[in-house]
Amino acid sequence: MAGVCFRSVLVTGANRGIGLGLVQHLLALPNPPEWVFATCRDPKGQRAQKLASKHPNLVIVPLEVTDPASIKAAAASVGERLKGSGLNLLINNAGVLNANTLETETLKDMLHVYTTNTIAPLLLSQAFLPLLKKAAQESPDSGMSCSKAAIVNISSIGGSISSLTGWDVMELVSYRCSKAAQNMLTRCQSMGYREHGILCVALHPGWVQTDMGNAAGYTPPLTVDASVGGMLKVLSNLSEKDSGAFLDWEGNVVAW
Amino acid sequence: MAGVCFRSVLVTGANRGIGLGLVQHLLALPNPPEWVFATCRDPKGQRAQKLASKHPNLVIVPLEVTDPASIKAAAASVGERLKGSGLNLLINNAGVLNANTLETETLKDMLHVYTTNTIAPLLLSQAFLPLLKKAAQESPDSGMSCSKAAIVNISSIGGSISSLTGWDVMELVSYRCSKAAQNMLTRCQSMGYREHGILCVALHPGWVQTDMGNAAGYTPPLTVDASVGGMLKVLSNLSEKDSGAFLDWEGNVVAW
Repeated sequence: MAGVCFRSVLVTGANRGIGLGLVQHLLALPNPPEWVFATCRDPKGQRAQKLASKHPNLVIVPLEVTDPASIKAAAASVGERLKGSGLNLLINNAGVLNANTLETETLKDMLHVYTTNTIAPLLLSQAFLPLLKKAAQESPDSGMSCSKAAIVNISSIGGSISSLTGWDVMELVSYRCSKAAQNMLTRCQSMGYREHGILCVALHPGWVQTDMGNAAGYTPPLTVDASVGGMLKVLSNLSEKDSGAFLDWEGNVVAW
Repeated sequence: MAGVCFRSVLVTGANRGIGLGLVQHLLALPNPPEWVFATCRDPKGQRAQKLASKHPNLVIVPLEVTDPASIKAAAASVGERLKGSGLNLLINNAGVLNANTLETETLKDMLHVYTTNTIAPLLLSQAFLPLLKKAAQESPDSGMSCSKAAIVNISSIGGSISSLTGWDVMELVSYRCSKAAQNMLTRCQSMGYREHGILCVALHPGWVQTDMGNAAGYTPPLTVDASVGGMLKVLSNLSEKDSGAFLDWEGNVVAW
């Protein structure tokens, strides 16, 4: 990834797990971003805040992804910090999972998971669209790339309708439905934002050793470092032909 | 379909469009169901009510599919009417569409469409599961069929992530996301309810001349009669191997 530069990146849900890992890896790149915006629900006294004390290019942004007003405020705050420049990369990573089954799912849980995993990436992309467009316009590149302008939605193979991977281990109906819907959103965004030069992709991070990944009661096979390292490598290689794709952390296509 | 008998059927959203068409076709079968339950938000002074005055086997059931209490009340009322028998066929047909775009979608619209199109089929299936199980247990057939016990979720090719059919005509992000999620639900139900002998299928009715179908400002190619006639023929031929499938009104497999 020596040649790739993600100039400005925003990662949601950056206080732990994959989000925190993405921020750490971005800051450790040979050519780190000029700005990394790490959003957290509670920006005080957290792990991301510790990192910020060491990295002047890391900005912690308070954000509750289920609240449209909070999203608007975050976009305004990031826009101010960028002082007229665009945002190159929006990584919609914040997500929730509940361990409900077909029998135990409720209206409330279905709504909560959908709001966080599906609607938030839609609203965040709407709010940051002017900054993403600006980044695309500023870029001298004619094609598409994550160093130009891109939306990355962190998805899951759990959202693969055809494979229904892991059903015997966890039913996770609300989560699966939200991720299938999020994959549809990625496809819609790839169509709608193509004219603006914004690449859109859905990424399956693998089954990772995070609080969410551990929910099944098994130890997942992948470390955060392995997943995040793989995903950043995949992102650095994406081009126009990949917009609208569903890829895993190794770059393999995942079936819808 | 001379040999097939859908003994007891419930159709949601039965006051117009495809739902009303399904009820009319079921009542007109050579061997009509013993009971057809037609649910409507407002059961008074409506088109389904007119039909009921002519067909003693048609029962109008008041139901607001977005309200869990209303769903429970409907299941209790249907259970009473069936006097100990099971319900063979649950057709989750009620659905909404709004003509929003990527730009105009809102939290509120996304939640409303998801609640009606995705969560309601989940909650209805939970509520009617005891009656569907009873129907499966009562049946002498060893395999699966819609005359034994089945859940039919009326889907749409608009929910096909891979094809993104009709994007240039209508973006319909909330609708597409809800139908992709509903397809995932159908797959989950087919896995979870297999042990109970309940067949689960997602059906694309075609682009039909209904209030919803006309929303694009074009006249859709299919009449309600052609769509409903096709779907009932497809349903009458389904067996165990079709559980979890996504089929159109002619029986063709639709890509996820």
